[in-house]
Amino acid sequence: LGAAPESAEEFRDAIRDGDRRALARAITLVESTRGDQAALGREILEQVVGETGSAVRVGITGPPGVGKSTFIEALGLFLLGEGHRVAVLAVDPSSPVTGGSILGDKTRMERLARCENAFIRPSPSGGSLGGVAHRTREAMMLVEAAGFDVVIVETVGIGQSEVTVASMVDFFLVLLLPGGGDELQGIKKGVIELADGLVVNKADGDSKAAAERTQQDYQGALDLIRPSTPGWTPRVLAASALRGEGIDGVWSMVTEHRTQLEASGELAARRRDQARAWLWSLLQDGLQEAFQSHPGVAARLPDFERQVEELQMTPYAAAQDLLQLFTRG
Amino acid sequence: LGAAPESAEEFRDAIRDGDRRALARAITLVESTRGDQAALGREILEQVVGETGSAVRVGITGPPGVGKSTFIEALGLFLLGEGHRVAVLAVDPSSPVTGGSILGDKTRMERLARCENAFIRPSPSGGSLGGVAHRTREAMMLVEAAGFDVVIVETVGIGQSEVTVASMVDFFLVLLLPGGGDELQGIKKGVIELADGLVVNKADGDSKAAAERTQQDYQGALDLIRPSTPGWTPRVLAASALRGEGIDGVWSMVTEHRTQLEASGELAARRRDQARAWLWSLLQDGLQEAFQSHPGVAARLPDFERQVEELQMTPYAAAQDLLQLFTRG
Repeated sequence: LGAAPESAEEFRDAIRDGDRRALARAITLVESTRGDQAALGREILEQVVGETGSAVRVGITGPPGVGKSTFIEALGLFLLGEGHRVAVLAVDPSSPVTGGSILGDKTRMERLARCENAFIRPSPSGGSLGGVAHRTREAMMLVEAAGFDVVIVETVGIGQSEVTVASMVDFFLVLLLPGGGDELQGIKKGVIELADGLVVNKADGDSKAAAERTQQDYQGALDLIRPSTPGWTPRVLAASALRGEGIDGVWSMVTEHRTQLEASGELAARRRDQARAWLWSLLQDGLQEAFQSHPGVAARLPDFERQVEELQMTPYAAAQDLLQLFTRG
Repeated sequence: LGAAPESAEEFRDAIRDGDRRALARAITLVESTRGDQAALGREILEQVVGETGSAVRVGITGPPGVGKSTFIEALGLFLLGEGHRVAVLAVDPSSPVTGGSILGDKTRMERLARCENAFIRPSPSGGSLGGVAHRTREAMMLVEAAGFDVVIVETVGIGQSEVTVASMVDFFLVLLLPGGGDELQGIKKGVIELADGLVVNKADGDSKAAAERTQQDYQGALDLIRPSTPGWTPRVLAASALRGEGIDGVWSMVTEHRTQLEASGELAARRRDQARAWLWSLLQDGLQEAFQSHPGVAARLPDFERQVEELQMTPYAAAQDLLQLFTRG
């Protein structure tokens, strides 16, 4: 390894050459709230943007206790064996401090973390879901530029973050526990309908029969309530991450899905949609921030909101007055 | 009836006094794209806003062929018999011209339309879903001010409009066909998970057994994939709108739901949230409109979007440049 990179071009070259420290440092820069660091981070992104977008992006979620870490480690090790290079990123808006998050903790996925062709990154610290999502998208670009061809985005399962993660990946996988019913209360409303595939984990030992029943029940529920989408029908599989069983089948499902999306042109269309959606998400955040930090708006907004809530004013009149305050400067 | 109202105050008084022509005319004013008419419409809303918010608001959707009109007419006639005054509003963003929409067509719900205590309003014409939704919210305020204590918002079932309608009503009802499987393909993804209740319609004659199976299947699916929400678990009922069977049970479900939401304070909280969400929806629409109609932004936006789609530029850089163009005037 040469000297530590300093310019955006040096970072680009080091990341391309497989310098893991440079990659980790670049991610830290794009996550930074310090203006000069964030500016360098953005310059690095501009340097590498053309080399991104070719990895297989898989989002994974599941209720507490489902064995997400064990599953992701098993899937990651399987993929390394197949010759892939695997990056794992975590989205956890509840995480209070960098490095202290539940997801991506260094004591998790120890075997995977030691492998040269794997890269594990904990969740960016705190902030809004929108902010965490943007930083995860940026980290995804950097690991793709570093040649990782499978990116796993892990989400903590608090509902809203699943919608965001599903919108930035190619395949969204939901892990389930065997047995159904109460144990499954941890799955948030709407998450199942985002899934391109479900996997009942812990299908081993005494739980094997229960896992098969759960698999059948969910396949029945999906067939019933979810319309088939052109080119792909979500499937429900069973696996045991602990014993490494069924992991190959999960990956076959992901690659089959990708082949179908590629053949239909849907993948390219989705990547363009994702890029444009990301731009618009940034624009909306930026517009809202400019609006809310406008002194005239900030001074009057709470009062307008109260009047609207108490039916003293229509939302229409309040919006018109507030927008006039904003656009008049 | 006195002279036709002209000022906002006269409209308010006429609407309060049960003048149906004044009510219909006021809704036309708030729907108008002509500046002077829309301004008068907004003044009328300001006059009546304090008298709104007490009706039971029920959203109803279902796949084509489920018998939505027959069901809504049966429910409406039942409610009239119970002493209620019932307004039916339609949300149909696909509707090309006023009066020509599929929903709210005058040949539908003929018996209900002839009743003095019922008011049926077709979908506002064309425009974006957001625009149609805003105008439906405004029509809802006007019919509430006119003393209609049950407002049924009918939606055509094209997916996105259900999310919007569910957010503006107290109870969201999804109608199903007996038999499951292929016939149900018309239900869009995510709609079932919005439901506070499901009703399998056409549970009569030869379809009765199939309806019961569908009822059980969906109750099973809902129990499986949807977590219970505090205070309310969605139910699945069967009914025959044609024979008027099961309609009373549907209304019992709606009132029981309302009693629970009122007791827990959830209804009041939801009304405040709805009002604030409406304000923010108007603000976001307004900000986006101001942004997109800004000459500097409009001139460069297509090129930035293309560069982002083709990975020649990061969304971050594009958003920053565009926002600077906008905020610098």
